[in-house]
Amino acid sequence: MKNFISLNDTAGSPDELIDLALRFKQDPFSSRTGHRKTLGLLFLNPSLRTRLSTQKAGHNLGMQVMVMNMDSEGWKLEMEDGSVMDGASQEHIKDAIRVICEYVDVIGVRTFPGLKSREEDYGEKIMSSIVKHANKPVLSLESATRHPLQSLADLVTIREMGITRPKVVLSWAPHPRALPQAVPNSFLEWVKATNAEVTVTCPKGYELSDEFMQGTHLVHNQEEAFDGADVIYAKNWSSYQHYGERLPVQEDWTITKAKMGLTNNGKFMHCLPVRRNVIATDEVLDNHSVIYQQAGNRVFAAQAVLEKLLQS
Amino acid sequence: MKNFISLNDTAGSPDELIDLALRFKQDPFSSRTGHRKTLGLLFLNPSLRTRLSTQKAGHNLGMQVMVMNMDSEGWKLEMEDGSVMDGASQEHIKDAIRVICEYVDVIGVRTFPGLKSREEDYGEKIMSSIVKHANKPVLSLESATRHPLQSLADLVTIREMGITRPKVVLSWAPHPRALPQAVPNSFLEWVKATNAEVTVTCPKGYELSDEFMQGTHLVHNQEEAFDGADVIYAKNWSSYQHYGERLPVQEDWTITKAKMGLTNNGKFMHCLPVRRNVIATDEVLDNHSVIYQQAGNRVFAAQAVLEKLLQS
Amino acid sequence: MKNFISLNDTAGSPDELIDLALRFKQDPFSSRTGHRKTLGLLFLNPSLRTRLSTQKAGHNLGMQVMVMNMDSEGWKLEMEDGSVMDGASQEHIKDAIRVICEYVDVIGVRTFPGLKSREEDYGEKIMSSIVKHANKPVLSLESATRHPLQSLADLVTIREMGITRPKVVLSWAPHPRALPQAVPNSFLEWVKATNAEVTVTCPKGYELSDEFMQGTHLVHNQEEAFDGADVIYAKNWSSYQHYGERLPVQEDWTITKAKMGLTNNGKFMHCLPVRRNVIATDEVLDNHSVIYQQAGNRVFAAQAVLEKLLQS
Repeated sequence: MKNFISLNDTAGSPDELIDLALRFKQDPFSSRTGHRKTLGLLFLNPSLRTRLSTQKAGHNLGMQVMVMNMDSEGWKLEMEDGSVMDGASQEHIKDAIRVICEYVDVIGVRTFPGLKSREEDYGEKIMSSIVKHANKPVLSLESATRHPLQSLADLVTIREMGITRPKVVLSWAPHPRALPQAVPNSFLEWVKATNAEVTVTCPKGYELSDEFMQGTHLVHNQEEAFDGADVIYAKNWSSYQHYGERLPVQEDWTITKAKMGLTNNGKFMHCLPVRRNVIATDEVLDNHSVIYQQAGNRVFAAQAVLEKLLQS
Repeated sequence: MKNFISLNDTAGSPDELIDLALRFKQDPFSSRTGHRKTLGLLFLNPSLRTRLSTQKAGHNLGMQVMVMNMDSEGWKLEMEDGSVMDGASQEHIKDAIRVICEYVDVIGVRTFPGLKSREEDYGEKIMSSIVKHANKPVLSLESATRHPLQSLADLVTIREMGITRPKVVLSWAPHPRALPQAVPNSFLEWVKATNAEVTVTCPKGYELSDEFMQGTHLVHNQEEAFDGADVIYAKNWSSYQHYGERLPVQEDWTITKAKMGLTNNGKFMHCLPVRRNVIATDEVLDNHSVIYQQAGNRVFAAQAVLEKLLQS
Repeated sequence: MKNFISLNDTAGSPDELIDLALRFKQDPFSSRTGHRKTLGLLFLNPSLRTRLSTQKAGHNLGMQVMVMNMDSEGWKLEMEDGSVMDGASQEHIKDAIRVICEYVDVIGVRTFPGLKSREEDYGEKIMSSIVKHANKPVLSLESATRHPLQSLADLVTIREMGITRPKVVLSWAPHPRALPQAVPNSFLEWVKATNAEVTVTCPKGYELSDEFMQGTHLVHNQEEAFDGADVIYAKNWSSYQHYGERLPVQEDWTITKAKMGLTNNGKFMHCLPVRRNVIATDEVLDNHSVIYQQAGNRVFAAQAVLEKLLQS
């Protein structure tokens, strides 16, 4: 595997990575592929789970890990090609990436979307530029439109439920700020590549891009969507159609114990961080969820991906 | 030892930990208890000594160490249980702790008091919540009312003086800002569990909580207190009675060479960072102190505690 | 080697360090001198290359590395000796350094000049104080007037060109802000100790201190200076004479393909970060430069220096 940015990098099937992640969960120290190898993690945005789980994954493989918070520790990055850098930006992204590649064997990068230009964000302008200029394998720690390490960990978690053909519902949920679509996009991309039956429920105007929606059922009535579900995957996202906006929503989309009661003893999933009593009630999070199992599986998902990137 | 938050966690006696710390000082690499174990250090507040000495202690035992600065690297934490998180807070402390526990074998946390509500601070609301939600051993890197790693290192330092029954004076000293009571509280809690004779000297109104004062001599006249002392342990703290306030003080409480001259060739101690020529003069700090020995002993104190937590 | 602050620390000849760096480039894991040793990196200013390459160098030698961002993670430092610390400063630099020395075997520090007082900056007031108070080897990660790890990596890069007596031109180039003179000073100090023929070209008023200029040719006409050069080493710096100021400059000093055409198929060098299309055009940076080779050589330069410091 040359890079890990989207499902495409796996030749379209997540199965091999899921299997490998589960093997690492059984025996975290079974591979020393990372011996004398260095993982560099470059954060352009905040991170807790990704930061710690990916470090841990590298350590498990015997890697050295170096973490860099670009904003607070380094220089202000220029993202435009060809610009005359006489303003605030101090270093071009392409120089930063190419230099870091001198120091690492795998480079992980987190970069959030601006949510202003749909074209730029969905063109994955920054991540594409990073992949173009890197001469080492690039590991996405979340990009403008996808969060593949999260999605892989989510599939590992669903696999562990042992349901033959799970009914999976991706549900929009409320949030006080406009959020990226990366997690729901990516979840759909990956879960559709399994044998799950996938439904999306969201208020009108919050439908995700066709690329991700196709092959799923769209149900605007949340309670109808929940009926008989094995998995409720909750997430807030801003509008794709009215790009980056928060649209007025009348109904209460917070996920409650009563709504979970409509499911087939379904499990609640969320990538975290989660706004308690906004996305879902404490009761749902504390009694009906597998959120910590998801978070724990991030280590083994990252470990499987690093193993494959190091073997490339 | 399940957690390390206060003296209580040691079954009331610091001796075993002091002995172990001194053994690690002789031979820092004598234990590999930390092999394939991970230490996570979560800072909600600044730190230099604790940050570096605890990392070093983990390394000495063979641990991997991951450091997380919550404010600048992660998400804004919610501390209230049951709150509707539609404001600035992005992640609940209980979720952050429970998730980090997926990635570590021991979780260290530093969290300062607010100094607004004595009830909240002395209830150790945040640290209690952390201990409650963690499913791995919790190592206090300083909490609202205690700093046990500092206190253990202080006792190691006093032990190294080789005085049979040392006269120890905890002295209040000036400072331009309102500071927590954690270090003096904790020092009293721990030093009282040794055979030292303990005196507290402070301006009226600066007496610490009864829980910590009992079993000590209280002397409001600083020079009287210093008479014949073997150890002067200096620290500023804000008022416990007028909670979190700086009260007007007439006398000059800065510790000078002249005042040290009243002692029994006593040694000056301070946890650092220290305001030079405010807490104590340069002369005292540079010629009469064991402050760097204290700082160095932080490594071995932390190493002893980690050894015990890993064995639990 | 006791410390690494300037060329003086090498007994005046960079050759042994260059040789050692090139050996480490051939076999990065050939020395385990760093086993059970700790490298502490203290940053008072931003850093990307130095931060990552020095960490990597330590890892290659088997060291544990701890990184500390003083401003964001620790306490505000006091730099004046004897001051009454009742203001914003929370910890004296001498205490911070002496304490960190308790935790490390080598201490690296980065501290930029204030560019306000030439006397203070050129007296290397802060670095001298650090060296004075440290009881472990001090590794400069760039100080007020020098950046020796960069200069050593630069000499390694020039050596790799295999030119018997290279014509090296240090050229001033434009920049929107007032920058330190550390990189050009240090480059001159080191390159003059090789058999290179060295020319400096800059607008009038931008001549560096005599200490660094002596033994070089000064040519105010940039194109004349470029004639027949093997190496163009570009950098912006503020005025030494009108200390720390940006002086009005009429000509266009940006380094272009046309100007590079005047050289003897010369290579463009820069320490990075570089303002693209201000210091030099994209064309020069992408087609005529060895900037990434320089950045990569930072690892082996640091590794050679750490090896020597650990042997001391």
